[in-house]
Amino acid sequence: MTRKNILLKPEEMPRQWYNILADIKLNPPLGADGKPISPESLAPVFPMNLIEQEMSTQRWIDIPQEVLEILSIWRPAPLIRAGAFEKALRTPARIYVKYEGGSPPGSHKPNTAVPQVYYNKVFGIKRLTTETGAGQWGSALAFACAQFGLECKVYMVRISFDQKPYRKAMMQTWGGNCLASPSTETAAGRAALAADPDTPGSLGIAISEAVEAAVADKSGQTRYSLGSVLNHVMLHQTIIGLEAKKQLALVGDEPDVIIGCAGGGSNFAGISFPFVLDKMNGREISILPVEPKACPSLTRGPFGYDYGDTSRYTPLLAMYSLGHTFIPPAIHAGGLRYHGMAPTVSQLAHEGLIEPKSVSQLDAYRAGVLWARTEGHIPAPETCNALAQVVSEAEKAREEGKEKVILACFSGHGLLDLAAYDRYFSGQLTDADLDEREIDRAREMLGKHPLPENLRSR
Amino acid sequence: MTRKNILLKPEEMPRQWYNILADIKLNPPLGADGKPISPESLAPVFPMNLIEQEMSTQRWIDIPQEVLEILSIWRPAPLIRAGAFEKALRTPARIYVKYEGGSPPGSHKPNTAVPQVYYNKVFGIKRLTTETGAGQWGSALAFACAQFGLECKVYMVRISFDQKPYRKAMMQTWGGNCLASPSTETAAGRAALAADPDTPGSLGIAISEAVEAAVADKSGQTRYSLGSVLNHVMLHQTIIGLEAKKQLALVGDEPDVIIGCAGGGSNFAGISFPFVLDKMNGREISILPVEPKACPSLTRGPFGYDYGDTSRYTPLLAMYSLGHTFIPPAIHAGGLRYHGMAPTVSQLAHEGLIEPKSVSQLDAYRAGVLWARTEGHIPAPETCNALAQVVSEAEKAREEGKEKVILACFSGHGLLDLAAYDRYFSGQLTDADLDEREIDRAREMLGKHPLPENLRSR
Repeated sequence: MTRKNILLKPEEMPRQWYNILADIKLNPPLGADGKPISPESLAPVFPMNLIEQEMSTQRWIDIPQEVLEILSIWRPAPLIRAGAFEKALRTPARIYVKYEGGSPPGSHKPNTAVPQVYYNKVFGIKRLTTETGAGQWGSALAFACAQFGLECKVYMVRISFDQKPYRKAMMQTWGGNCLASPSTETAAGRAALAADPDTPGSLGIAISEAVEAAVADKSGQTRYSLGSVLNHVMLHQTIIGLEAKKQLALVGDEPDVIIGCAGGGSNFAGISFPFVLDKMNGREISILPVEPKACPSLTRGPFGYDYGDTSRYTPLLAMYSLGHTFIPPAIHAGGLRYHGMAPTVSQLAHEGLIEPKSVSQLDAYRAGVLWARTEGHIPAPETCNALAQVVSEAEKAREEGKEKVILACFSGHGLLDLAAYDRYFSGQLTDADLDEREIDRAREMLGKHPLPENLRSR
Repeated sequence: MTRKNILLKPEEMPRQWYNILADIKLNPPLGADGKPISPESLAPVFPMNLIEQEMSTQRWIDIPQEVLEILSIWRPAPLIRAGAFEKALRTPARIYVKYEGGSPPGSHKPNTAVPQVYYNKVFGIKRLTTETGAGQWGSALAFACAQFGLECKVYMVRISFDQKPYRKAMMQTWGGNCLASPSTETAAGRAALAADPDTPGSLGIAISEAVEAAVADKSGQTRYSLGSVLNHVMLHQTIIGLEAKKQLALVGDEPDVIIGCAGGGSNFAGISFPFVLDKMNGREISILPVEPKACPSLTRGPFGYDYGDTSRYTPLLAMYSLGHTFIPPAIHAGGLRYHGMAPTVSQLAHEGLIEPKSVSQLDAYRAGVLWARTEGHIPAPETCNALAQVVSEAEKAREEGKEKVILACFSGHGLLDLAAYDRYFSGQLTDADLDEREIDRAREMLGKHPLPENLRSR
């Protein structure tokens, strides 16, 4: 057979995560007073074992047995040798795609939801809160909470809550409690409703509500959980790249180009971080985070200190950002609409170890449709962005006549995003670059918290 | 790890299908004149190589290499040892569930769509037509046609077409042309629209349109494709049970009870037929097709000759049926709403080799939710019916204190059926048995074509 998934045996699943903080140095998160925050100041929000993991510089961290057991519902995940896609692109490149659509919620998000819930449970936490935009992250956390018997409360941006009732049903099926944000249950929600009773809500408000609800529980049994950006989230996702590395070794290939879509950064980190180490050790690899042209934090945003949320509840993080008040145009790759970028990914870009790319919305769907028609699985809109870059690299390989090896991540399937495909086919989607004035505004905002001279890691 | 999927290596995928027609004898399909139909009379509708397969009595039939290659996108499929589900049910039974939700369209349907398109292609056919109700089958055929480069036209019942635009987008993503039925493109469609311009459509009308469109193409390059009921469809689905058999052998278990949901019969046939042979050879196994109480063809319908479609376009088939004009109540397990049952499955029930069961809608969703919360994947409504029977059998094993081995089929995931879960959680679903008068009506209808004395097969 020419087309065959490259599979690992259950016992070949990686037993440790790779922690990139052993190999790069980050500018520390700052409090509102401009001073580095202490671990203790985060204790009302996250359990201390996860805070320690967030700050750990140990290179390899054991994956707990209980976590491996639940990941084994869908892991090891297949590595697809995309022979039919290659053929359609008439490229000499060998394209390998790591398929993360097999998890129960259909994306890579449970790779971190499961360990996060596990560490919370070990710490004695009974209930988690979180926010969700389009619903991917809320679904993943609800799934993981069901596995460990924790309660789960998800504040979902009202406009998505109303437009996507199936996401709410999904969380409910896993026992999660999903409510529209702003809600009347928190001070942040009530304030937002008082200001505008008809507000569609925003991720910023939803984050504020989720954090407030966690902190407000005086029993100390509730914490908050975040699905991207933070170091421990990137850590948990490295199982993607570590599996891919083993799978490529089985067929005797090594990647020349690595591609992942980048919103908050966790999918990109997952597929690429284990290979960044190889690059630091001298191997020549192009490592490409891909973002939509409509939300180009890494490719056009300034690097500096900015808040993680609109309402400035989080610490200041050193990252590429379009400014914490930035509201991206209504593109459909909901998971890529974040204003900032994980500090780890940002630092790698700043040091030139990775080369950010951006693609247009129409190119993304075009690549996604080609993938579906050749290789079968319908990709999520986020994944389409990565595939558009794969197409570019495959075409470049054809022009150069090079037998390049391309590795990309398929972050999730698109079966819950078919309305977006419908809009694509009916010609309702358009391309739009971000106006330069928006970038100016971001520069001004990030200029308020000047960044100390960065230390190169090595 | 206590929970681990039982996986086969790619090279362990079965290379042959099991044909139950080698081991049972069916009453032949009849034409409107009451005489057995000839293969030639089907030639305008199906390609001759599939007609030959439909009538073959060869026990093992090779799976073509090109078919294996495409099946390998998601096969071999995992066999789940449902340890968490067992624990929740406090049962001594060992429960194994074959997961068919990993295919690109998310159900078992592509197991037959792929070989059907292949045989049509080999026969020189360029275009396939079919009908679809809720959209599962139309999606599967569109996916398979994209793989082989055939055109695909799907007549989708208008009410579903309007209510489920994402299904249309799914087919379109794979290049399929999905249109609402009744359409103005066929005489059958125009007649239906003339009778009632606002008709919601029906599967009967959609079948008539699809068959008419295939036969009307005078170039001879178009044929029709059906997703259940026929012998060759059951044949193609046996790869499910054949894989499961190998997987159970890996852990040294043999099933005492086999469970599959049954609408037209193809999912049930897929998981069970390879084990029916063992039963004929003397092994004690309970083999249970499960249908909804609202559409109980096998458990309450009469056995006799009936048409496969409302408009009596098909030959008369010997089967259990609620009558070809039967319209089942609006339950949500769309795939289980067929009035009849595959002749092969019907014959096994008639001979007492399988024991049909029926479950209520609320029990089905209750079991599906328990599965999602313990094992992760959200089951399709059809699958929920099978799981409800698994729950009954597991409870029986607990009462009897028996270490039974239960094997069931997870026909597909429910990510495109979340609206039905939403209705379940909001209390909008109810249970309703079928009125006895409906059964009387079916007896009267089937009485018009008396069945000759059946030959037992062995």
